[in-house]
Amino acid sequence: MKAQILVIGDELLAGKIKDANTQVIAKWLLKEGFELTRVVITGDERENLTQCLKLAWQDSDLVITTGGLGPTEDDITKLVIGEFFGGKLVENPKAKEMAIKNYARIDKEWSPDTNSYHLIPEGLEVVPNPAGLAPGLACAREGKLLLSAPGVPRELKAMLEGPFLELLDQHFPTRQNDQRLLTIRTVGIPEERIFFELMPNLWKELSQHGKVSSLPQIVGVDIHLTFKGSDKELQEKKRFWRERLEKSPLASYIWAYDLKPIEEVVLEKAREKNLKIAIAESCTGGLVAHRLTNIPGGSSHFYGSVVAYHNEVKTHILGVKKETLKEFGAVSVETAKEMAKGVINALQVDVAVSLTGIAGPGGGSEEKPVGTVCIGMANKNEVSAKRYNYRGGRDYLKLRFSEMGLHKLHNIINDLDVS
Amino acid sequence: MKAQILVIGDELLAGKIKDANTQVIAKWLLKEGFELTRVVITGDERENLTQCLKLAWQDSDLVITTGGLGPTEDDITKLVIGEFFGGKLVENPKAKEMAIKNYARIDKEWSPDTNSYHLIPEGLEVVPNPAGLAPGLACAREGKLLLSAPGVPRELKAMLEGPFLELLDQHFPTRQNDQRLLTIRTVGIPEERIFFELMPNLWKELSQHGKVSSLPQIVGVDIHLTFKGSDKELQEKKRFWRERLEKSPLASYIWAYDLKPIEEVVLEKAREKNLKIAIAESCTGGLVAHRLTNIPGGSSHFYGSVVAYHNEVKTHILGVKKETLKEFGAVSVETAKEMAKGVINALQVDVAVSLTGIAGPGGGSEEKPVGTVCIGMANKNEVSAKRYNYRGGRDYLKLRFSEMGLHKLHNIINDLDVS
Repeated sequence: MKAQILVIGDELLAGKIKDANTQVIAKWLLKEGFELTRVVITGDERENLTQCLKLAWQDSDLVITTGGLGPTEDDITKLVIGEFFGGKLVENPKAKEMAIKNYARIDKEWSPDTNSYHLIPEGLEVVPNPAGLAPGLACAREGKLLLSAPGVPRELKAMLEGPFLELLDQHFPTRQNDQRLLTIRTVGIPEERIFFELMPNLWKELSQHGKVSSLPQIVGVDIHLTFKGSDKELQEKKRFWRERLEKSPLASYIWAYDLKPIEEVVLEKAREKNLKIAIAESCTGGLVAHRLTNIPGGSSHFYGSVVAYHNEVKTHILGVKKETLKEFGAVSVETAKEMAKGVINALQVDVAVSLTGIAGPGGGSEEKPVGTVCIGMANKNEVSAKRYNYRGGRDYLKLRFSEMGLHKLHNIINDLDVS
Repeated sequence: MKAQILVIGDELLAGKIKDANTQVIAKWLLKEGFELTRVVITGDERENLTQCLKLAWQDSDLVITTGGLGPTEDDITKLVIGEFFGGKLVENPKAKEMAIKNYARIDKEWSPDTNSYHLIPEGLEVVPNPAGLAPGLACAREGKLLLSAPGVPRELKAMLEGPFLELLDQHFPTRQNDQRLLTIRTVGIPEERIFFELMPNLWKELSQHGKVSSLPQIVGVDIHLTFKGSDKELQEKKRFWRERLEKSPLASYIWAYDLKPIEEVVLEKAREKNLKIAIAESCTGGLVAHRLTNIPGGSSHFYGSVVAYHNEVKTHILGVKKETLKEFGAVSVETAKEMAKGVINALQVDVAVSLTGIAGPGGGSEEKPVGTVCIGMANKNEVSAKRYNYRGGRDYLKLRFSEMGLHKLHNIINDLDVS
């Protein structure tokens, strides 16, 4: 069963906002057994929108639209969908009731002067919005289904998890998902070395089990194997490939076989070994801590981070020696080591990493160009540091630095013998 | 002149990665005078991709594709583009030379066995990739232009700024951009109150000057007015609307008339008033500091942040009293005040905000539900704190908390009399 997404909004085409919904819907469709064949982003413009809707509807079993359902005059999705399916906007008692209830929820009184949330194209179904004010739409015709949600990510998510799921069950009750994904995640080795040097037959070998793709990540490469099968078959293939790869030259580069982010893996390992962790960050400016705190429930093991952006904070809070800064510079393995050791002492934790580097665009030199980062790794007894060089713009460098810092934290937690 | 973007990659349709390129290209197109009418995301699948290419080409003056130019077997963009324009893959001396040079840059030797980067569809132009290994493509026909770049964001950016810009200059030398944007940014007031209560004629009034759109932001609403005109006209309209709105009931809610993010505004104001700033973060876990350090060159005024995720860090480093935590809880205006004051003392700065709240999904109670945040605001002499309640999932709440924290920091810097 094929699906398409229609993302509607001038603000997307003008580059004012980033499309946050496609990935969410794509994952949901995969889970629900649909193959997403196309995503079209288009503006709040009648003719263009109608054409996109026509193309999407003719090629799919399910079309999901997001955006253009708000109260302001540029929101024309409801109008266009109505025209396409031949229904004029008419007062819908269910929609009116929803509007009154939704406004009561935010202690407001709704009236037909407030907006046109009570008007729905004739013959179409109004869909409740559990997290917002603008209702959604549904239209079932020719064994196909169209679902319309507002573009606000929080509201879209709530609709996918609630009313849209019910509508799928109603209209596609026999659907099933037999798509399975096996992931092999590596770090510290480029794509081409994997497939052309270390294991020149890997792609072909994997292809016998399904569709292969190779995805360069922030500081590593993920290999994905997609196939149709059962969960049992997935487990079997996982076991097979784990054993196959453990004896391969790729073994030491593999860090996971599932899609959990490195920050989640770090927190799981810290919990397993009952270790307290902390970070000292200069160039990443809080990003490592931000990523660790994106995972719920981490506060029992992740204690905190000292973002020592100014050198005075490095000396005051982390106890980095002024002489070290003077002799080796803020971006040096020496400073990284003192930062890592310093945060262990200040926050009274078991393990820590520190990051000090140059994210650019300014601040680079011939000896220490933009992209240089020194990562310190410490436990209560030992400290070491290593220097890396990356390429990229400021945002990307911060991300790469933080990713490598988390991998280093993973390593020191793994290496620590707590038995 | 009309443009379309074709984003190619199975990993996007499977929801494995987020499309990071569309926004970048959309901004670039706007700047270069093109109207982006549609973005299509599709997979590495021959038939579908060919159809998308055909549709994009027939309706546009410029088509940009990203993705599917890598070395692995699922990368078929080059093949499909070749077929569409009627050119078989042939050895291209310029492409071969590029491959050899690019590999030399990373201290590797390239040979035709390494990959097929030397093969380019007959009649098409190879485009250098300043930041990566896989070259791009260009095809000029019927007064139109197709440009193909790899999907890696860093490489795409480098191509847009370099070789693609040169190709635009060559093929569309007379293009000009007369699109202008006026922005009115508000905080602390919902969309419907602006347009239906406070200023019911605003939308109509603005519409006389151009196309209006209203964009709810993380904790506020941006109003955009787009029109065709000169920079001088933009300045005139800006002056007009500034004066008009300063006397309106909306005045106290407006915080900016341009698109700079709040973190950049904060750093500019801190520089203007020569103030040292710091953050104490619990629930935002480093996000406020991360955002401030996304702006280059801030280290002279942004000193750092203490991410006090565990309560022990709140007491050890920030000097929050154990009794305060016991009596009022970690999420309280009392704790927020002590955190703000504490980070001013610990990091020896002039102004600071603190954030302590519940980002969920766990940890909420009836009295303090998920979405509660207490924000402390301090300068060297005064401290205050305020409690807010937001709705949303964990990621979104962290973002909203951080946004409000930055607005509060903006306020205390604005209010501080340093004359």
